[in-house]
Parts: sequence; C-alpha cells; structure tokens
Amino acid sequence: MELEQNNEIIALLEGPDRPGIVASVAGWIHGRGGNIAHADQHRDSDAGVFFQRVAWQHPTSDEGDPIADFTALAATLGMRTKVFEARHRPKIAVFVSKFDHCFHDILLRWKGGEFAGDISLVLSNHETLARATEGYGVPFYHVAVSPQRKHEAEAEQLRILREHGIELVVMARYMQILSDDFLSKSEAPVINIHHSFLPAFAGARPYHQAFRRGVKIIGATAHYATADLDEGPIIQQEVLHVNHRHGVSDLIRKGRDLEKVVLAQAVRWHLEHRILVYGNKTVVFD
Amino acid sequence: MELEQNNEIIALLEGPDRPGIVASVAGWIHGRGGNIAHADQHRDSDAGVFFQRVAWQHPTSDEGDPIADFTALAATLGMRTKVFEARHRPKIAVFVSKFDHCFHDILLRWKGGEFAGDISLVLSNHETLARATEGYGVPFYHVAVSPQRKHEAEAEQLRILREHGIELVVMARYMQILSDDFLSKSEAPVINIHHSFLPAFAGARPYHQAFRRGVKIIGATAHYATADLDEGPIIQQEVLHVNHRHGVSDLIRKGRDLEKVVLAQAVRWHLEHRILVYGNKTVVFD
Amino acid sequence: MELEQNNEIIALLEGPDRPGIVASVAGWIHGRGGNIAHADQHRDSDAGVFFQRVAWQHPTSDEGDPIADFTALAATLGMRTKVFEARHRPKIAVFVSKFDHCFHDILLRWKGGEFAGDISLVLSNHETLARATEGYGVPFYHVAVSPQRKHEAEAEQLRILREHGIELVVMARYMQILSDDFLSKSEAPVINIHHSFLPAFAGARPYHQAFRRGVKIIGATAHYATADLDEGPIIQQEVLHVNHRHGVSDLIRKGRDLEKVVLAQAVRWHLEHRILVYGNKTVVFD
Amino acid sequence: MELEQNNEIIALLEGPDRPGIVASVAGWIHGRGGNIAHADQHRDSDAGVFFQRVAWQHPTSDEGDPIADFTALAATLGMRTKVFEARHRPKIAVFVSKFDHCFHDILLRWKGGEFAGDISLVLSNHETLARATEGYGVPFYHVAVSPQRKHEAEAEQLRILREHGIELVVMARYMQILSDDFLSKSEAPVINIHHSFLPAFAGARPYHQAFRRGVKIIGATAHYATADLDEGPIIQQEVLHVNHRHGVSDLIRKGRDLEKVVLAQAVRWHLEHRILVYGNKTVVFD
Repeated sequence: MELEQNNEIIALLEGPDRPGIVASVAGWIHGRGGNIAHADQHRDSDAGVFFQRVAWQHPTSDEGDPIADFTALAATLGMRTKVFEARHRPKIAVFVSKFDHCFHDILLRWKGGEFAGDISLVLSNHETLARATEGYGVPFYHVAVSPQRKHEAEAEQLRILREHGIELVVMARYMQILSDDFLSKSEAPVINIHHSFLPAFAGARPYHQAFRRGVKIIGATAHYATADLDEGPIIQQEVLHVNHRHGVSDLIRKGRDLEKVVLAQAVRWHLEHRILVYGNKTVVFD
Repeated sequence: MELEQNNEIIALLEGPDRPGIVASVAGWIHGRGGNIAHADQHRDSDAGVFFQRVAWQHPTSDEGDPIADFTALAATLGMRTKVFEARHRPKIAVFVSKFDHCFHDILLRWKGGEFAGDISLVLSNHETLARATEGYGVPFYHVAVSPQRKHEAEAEQLRILREHGIELVVMARYMQILSDDFLSKSEAPVINIHHSFLPAFAGARPYHQAFRRGVKIIGATAHYATADLDEGPIIQQEVLHVNHRHGVSDLIRKGRDLEKVVLAQAVRWHLEHRILVYGNKTVVFD
Repeated sequence: MELEQNNEIIALLEGPDRPGIVASVAGWIHGRGGNIAHADQHRDSDAGVFFQRVAWQHPTSDEGDPIADFTALAATLGMRTKVFEARHRPKIAVFVSKFDHCFHDILLRWKGGEFAGDISLVLSNHETLARATEGYGVPFYHVAVSPQRKHEAEAEQLRILREHGIELVVMARYMQILSDDFLSKSEAPVINIHHSFLPAFAGARPYHQAFRRGVKIIGATAHYATADLDEGPIIQQEVLHVNHRHGVSDLIRKGRDLEKVVLAQAVRWHLEHRILVYGNKTVVFD
Repeated sequence: MELEQNNEIIALLEGPDRPGIVASVAGWIHGRGGNIAHADQHRDSDAGVFFQRVAWQHPTSDEGDPIADFTALAATLGMRTKVFEARHRPKIAVFVSKFDHCFHDILLRWKGGEFAGDISLVLSNHETLARATEGYGVPFYHVAVSPQRKHEAEAEQLRILREHGIELVVMARYMQILSDDFLSKSEAPVINIHHSFLPAFAGARPYHQAFRRGVKIIGATAHYATADLDEGPIIQQEVLHVNHRHGVSDLIRKGRDLEKVVLAQAVRWHLEHRILVYGNKTVVFD
C-alpha cells in the first residue's frame, strides 16, 4: 500500500478499559514516525469501556502497511478498531421522496465543500426531484415502492448501492421505512432525520403530535437507522421554541430549518469518522 | 368596592370567536375612563376559539364595580372571563421534599421582588428544609406522607391551604404524587416542574431514562398538575445540550439549572395572569 | 378601489400614546363590517409612544376605499400609519456577490412558498451567480462596481430597481457598501445580513475579529441598512456556541447557517408587515 | 511526598508543538504505574502551540514525587506545565457589593457540592451582605473603598487574601474596578462576570447600552480580570433572546439568570483545572 505525502490516518478504537492503551497507541504512532494531529478519548466507567479517536500524519516513507499494522496493534490491546485514510472520500447515496428542503441543503453543502465525502447518486420512490438532481450533475434513480413490491424494491435499491460502492446512505426525509432485511443487508450505514426531539413523538406526523400535546419546543433528531423504528443511536438533536401562535404549518416550516442543520451535522461527523456507536448510543468526538 | 389610584385591572377572556369582541372590550374600557396598558389576543382558527388578555388602568373615580361589570360585559359577549386587580398579590404555598435547589431559587426570587405574589408557607413531607425555611422568615409545615396515610395527609394539606387562603401551589421538586382527589378539592391551581422535556421521559427518574436512551439534549417542563401524571398543560420548557461525557450525575447537576429557570418563569407568568388553559394546552401572553 | 372576497388588510400604526386608540381602531373596523384576525400593540412608556399592528378581514361589499379611510382615521388619532393589502406581494431584488449560501437559501425558501413576496431579480457586482440565478428562472443583472465608477454603478442599480418596481432590497452577503446617496434615493428599504452579533465586530471580516478575541459565541444580525454602516435598526439576531477547537474557517462555516436563518427570518417578517422602525430600533410583532 | 490511595493528578501543559509529546506523557504515566482517566489536547496550528490536559490515577505505592517528576518531564519536552492533585481543594474569596443574586448562587452551589474548592471568605465594599454571609457560616470582610483610599483598600484586600491563602478570587458582581497594581500583586487569579456578550457593551451599565441599541439578544461573559478592563481572556458566554417588550428592568432581571449560570460554569471549570490561558484567549477542556 502506497501513501501520499502528508497522509492522514484516523482510527476509532473501542474495547475493555485497561491501563496503558493511550501510551501504547501514542507510542506506536511516534515509533512509526507519525505525528498525532488530534486525539480524544472517552471512558464509560460503569461499563468499563474505553473509546478513542486518534488522527495522525503518517510518513509517506513508511514502506509497511500502517492500516493493517495499526489494526494488529489494536487487536493485541483487545480493542475493536476501524482505521481510515482521511484522503479517501466515502460515496454517499441520498434517499428522498417529495420534500426537497433537506435534499437541496445536503446537495448544496456538498457542492460548497462542507463534506469529506461525495454524493454518488440520489434515489427516490418518486420522480419529483429527478430534474433538480440532474441540475446538480448527480445521477437519479427512481425506484417505485408499494406494499406489494417493497421487497423487490429494496432488492433493487441494494443492487444500486452495491453497484456504486455506496458507503453511506442519507435519508433526507425519505418517507418509506427501510425493512429490517434491507438494513441487515446494506453494507452502508444509514443516517435518518426524524422531525421531533426523540424519544418524544416517534412514529408518523410528529409535528401534528407536538401541536396536539401543546409543547413549547419542537426538535429534530438525526440517528442511525436500525430495525427498531426511531429507536436507533442518536447522533444529534436540536430544538426551537414555539408558542401558542404557531399552528401545525408553522411547526412544519420552522422544523425544516432544524432538520437541515441537524442532518447535515450528523453527516459531516460521520464522514469525518467522529462517531462511535456502542449499544444504542453514540460517542461523538467533535 | 373601592379602588386605589392608578388601579390596574387584568382580564383573561376565552370563548367562541365572533366579530366585534375586541371593539366591545376596548370600547367598554374607554367608556369607563380606563386606558389599556397591554392587550394581546389569540385565535385558534381550527377550534373557532378566541382568547384575550387585556390590562388597563381603571380610574379611581369610577363608583361602580368594574370587576363585576366587566364580567357581565364578557357574559353578554359569550366569553368566560377571569378578572384580577393587579395590586392583589396571590398567596403561594411551596411544596418541597429534600432537594433544595428549586426551593432556594423560588424563595430568593420572591425576596428579590421577581414575583407578583407572596409565599405564605412551605410544606414538606420531610423536615430537611425546616430551618432553611425559617431563615427566610416563612412558616414551615411538616406533613408526613406514607402510602397508608396518604389520604389523611392530603386532607391535612388541604386544611392548611384553606387556612392560609392559598391561591397557588408550587411543587418545587416535591417528590410525592398529588392524588386526583387532592387536585379536584384544591381551590389553588398547582404548578409542577418535571425534569425532562415532556412528553419524553415521563414518570420516575427521567435523567436516568435520558442517560440510557443516549439523548443529546436534556430538558425541564413546568406544567399544571392534573389527574394524569405528567400530562397536564405545559407552561414552559427549556433544554440544554449534553454529550457522551456527561454521566447521570452531570445530567442531574445541569438539569438543576433548567428546573430553576423553567419553574420560576412559569410561576412568574401565572402570578401576572398571563396564562390561559384550554383543553390540555396553554396560551401564554408573555 | 375594488377588493377581492376575504380581503385581508394589515395596518401598522405609530404615534403619541393616548387613551382610546385601541377602541377607536377596533370600533372603526367593526363598524365597517371587518373582523380582526390579529392585533398586537406595544407602548414605549418612557417615550410615550404607542405602536400597533392590526390585521383584519374586510368585507368585499364595502364600496368605499378602506385603505384611504383607515389612513384618514389614523390621522385623526394623531398616528402615522402604513396600510397594506395582504394579497399584494411585494417585489424583491436580491443583491449578491460571490458567496452563494444566502443566495440559494433565499431563492429556495421563496420557491418553497415561505415568503409573502416575490423575487423579481438578482443583481450582482460579479457574474459568478448568473447561471444559478437563471436556473431559478429569475432575471440576473450584472452591475460592475469599482471605486471609480461607484456612483455610476449605483445610478444603474437604482434605475433597475425603479424599472421593476422593487419594494424590498435584500443584501444576501452583497460585499459592497451602499452609499448614503443610494440609500436616500432608493424607494425600497434595504435589509442586510452582518456576520456578527452586532454591535460586536462591526466592519470587515467579523469572523476573523471574533477568532482573535477568543469569544465563545458567534452570531449574525439582520438589520435595515442605513447611512451608518452596521448601525441600522436591528431586526433579528442569533448566535451559536464555539470553542477553542474552531478555527476561522469553522467559524465561517458555522456562521453560514446563522446567516441564512437570520436573514430569512428578517425578510419573512418584513414581507408580512410585522416590523415597525422607530429611532434606531425595531418593534417586531411576530 | 505521600499520596493517598486513588490519588488523581491533573496536569495542564502548553508549549511548542512537536512530534511525540503525547507518547512521552502517556508513556511516563504508564511507566510510573498510573492510569489515564481523561486526556484532551489542542493544537493551534497557526501558532504552532500544543496544549494538553491529562488526568490520571497515580499509584500510592510510588515513593517518588510525581508532581516534581512530571514537571521535570514536561521541561525536557519544552512544555510549561501546572500540576495539581485533584484532592486539593483551592480556597476561594468571593468579592461582592450589594447585588446578591450571584452571591447566593455561588454560595448555594458550593454548599450543594458543585465546586471542587471551598469558599474561605466573602469580601465586600458594603456591609449589605454581612448577615447573609454569616448565615452560610462564612467569614465576611468589609473593606470600604473610595477614590481617596483605593490603594489602601486594595492593600488590605491583598493582605486578607494572603492571610487566608486564597487561590481564586470570584468577582460576583463586585462593582469596583481592581487596579493593575492589585492584579499584578494578587497571587490568586480573578474571575469576573460582565453583564454583556463582550466585546459588545464593555464598560458601565451594559444593559442600558443594550436597550438603547435595540439588540435582540443579551448576554453575560465570564473572563479572567486583567489590567485592560473587560478585555481579559473569555472563559464562557451565554445569551438570551429579548424583544421590544423588554425594558431595561426586564433585561436586568433576565440577565441575572445568565450571570449566575455563566459565572458558576467558569468557576467550576477553573477549579477542575480545565482552563489554559494563552495570549488573550482560553482553551477550555470541558
């Protein structure tokens, strides 16, 4: 494996806490001629689990395979690890339906250089956003979904993801539930945006639920999609104040701004390898 | 009924929307020589309900009874109304258990002149805060509560409230559930502070629930207590960001700041007659 | 003047406070068969000034001219007034330079139906956003500006605004200072977005200033442009937390989200006739 | 030097960035039998400066002097360092005048166990809070300050601080400016709370300034006091939204809640050795 000059490597580690992990990791990097650019760690004292994100400049003169070697080191420390080259830009598929606010927001942020990854395709169960997608110079895939052909549709979706080598799926207000089967077969993790401050108002029409309950805040939650709907590990949440003057349509309008910001933040963190999932929670090294 | 000079009157109105309400109310006040200091209104278009808060300086030279007369006017408009003289300071009972952060906060704000009402007594199921209460120059009542004598204890509480002419009960982290029976018999409305962003994490130990779920925000909710626990009309909510570094004890500590601010805001609004309850919601004319 | 069915009229009033204004206004509307949909008011007690926004459904059967008549009524009350028909959609010119985040945001919100007005043209001192503007189906005007021909350029800008009957200019990160002369000649008010929490960091490169000072929050401010740069009446401000990890480029990126939301909010309020300017301040009836 | 069981040591390091610092520090700790509980670092790439906070459990069986030895290690790495035993609780002096909200807040938080330090005394230029201080069981010092005897008064203050071995001065709305001379002679750093979002509204009566300018947010800033008034390194800032309805007295009331929370946060961080000052900025390892 050849590395470019100033190659940055990012590693995420997780495993049983024990003395010396930080020293071993830092010592290994220093011994190979690397220089740590960023290191952050977390210890779940109750569970006895240690988490670390470490990013370093690795010398191009190293003739070994630092990724394989670092993975081996982590194994000797009893740690699970994922190692990434920062220059590799993950391929993203954006799933949409008809709502276009998160769609435009994600596409424009990508065009503006905010993401450490690239959008390879947009996939939708409607044709509404076909032309807009093409305007961004991105391939558009229409995969109709109906109760009868859901399984078939998901098989087609998985085929498209594989064909493009997709590494992250972003549900930008995609209004279909991905099945258990899809999620277990997809090699790409899936980030979803839910339009409430979960766990409040899970399920359908959360702004309507919020209006009926008379809450004084509304929110949005970005989370990894799992088989349990709206129960996946939460990545980011934001809220806004509302009051009695705001009808459902106001909540929907105000909520759009939350959804955009929260989803974009989650995608940015994921692409920068800042998120570790454990159990049903996330550690975010921001 | 005699009024002092510069007497301010505050009226809250609620009823079926129809043309001319604002004109009738404003015309009546003007006709009696009053001057409107503040008027705010809200229309629930779906339900066809109109809400208004109007505050005005009523001339002391008026020899009639403006409160009775205004109430009669409202009736002719088909509106339910509550009318208050601003100079009347409602009597407050603060219910506490052992936690003292909301207790001190409410007492100090009152001493500092933030509230348009007065604390007449503190009532607790523990003796922990007896001395601190006396330090504020406020009578302290200890009413022990146990499953066996809950009914009896509540009867005693109601007797104390009546004796003092209490007009508002503030549950400042009082760790007992007030029964249906108590709430229906109490002439004073009850404001409670719940330490989560309801409807999320209703019930016991909400910070522990929040920690387990891995949310990225925590919150506090002030609401009127009703027979349905944690389901009463929400008055105010605030939240704070948290992350994976925060353990349960951090959530509890950070949450205390939320609870204090949210509860105090709700009490302030209530005492200034800014809150109208309808159905399970509130209109807050802030 | 003919009115459509269900014609809504909005009036903004300002003038010396005195008893009976609310009653007179409400009485007049009721007398003409109108029904008040929204009324809000404010009293600056120190200055003795009264402000009101009132919106009402005016009957189409009224054969008079309600706008002229209401204006006359206000005059008899000693109030300055502006009266608008809600169905009239003001024409907007968006001024841009090279930054495109506020540009896309404003255009997409307009397309999404968030604004009670229409974008008639985009005007820029650069050609960078010409194609993107055309993609939105909006005319693009390029008016080069240089120190030498600033006066000439502004004359051309004013001519374009007049030609299109522009009623609001939105500076969506337009990187030129509009001269005193331009502002006094423009019939359309001008809303600007400044990328700091004014009055902190007025002038050029506010994110760089903020970084140097080591502040823990950054902000954005929407204000009406006046001859005194960055000193105009503030309409809306929002902030975000930052910390030592954030370099200037992070502040710029995070700030973009603030700028978009704050500018859009100010434009929305202006178009809904919710803003009254007095002295160097605003009253916003939201 | 003898250490208790489970002794935690906290070190703050700052110096020129170079490869291997993390490895050296972690290696040293591991080699001495310590276990890192928390490590965080920051790199100012422009300035080429590296900052680190590291906290570790040091074995009680170590017969050497870990503080002296670690300081020596840091010196060999070219780093300035401060090393603390976590069990040592710094002594705090709270300076107050007549306002009591921050005073009560700080004292109650201390009593509630929020601070990793202890309040040794309250010092005031007025006698207003003498009795309240005694109610908390804390010695009260009255040092009158007048333009004529400012130098003398400060000499007395410094004497009191020295006598008590004070390690942190908290200006809890102390309404006197500490002179250059005082600040250079005081061995204890001084944390001040300013009632605006600095650098806006430096100087006197910031809420009045904010009201006149018509801002839509107010704020509070905790900073280390330096010779340049209101120009010291900022530790924490928070803001609240306000609108045209809020008069100066509302800003003052709402601002009190900000001041309390912001000052307490800064004090908490300082006592936990989470703050590194460099130039006129802070790195806060929270």
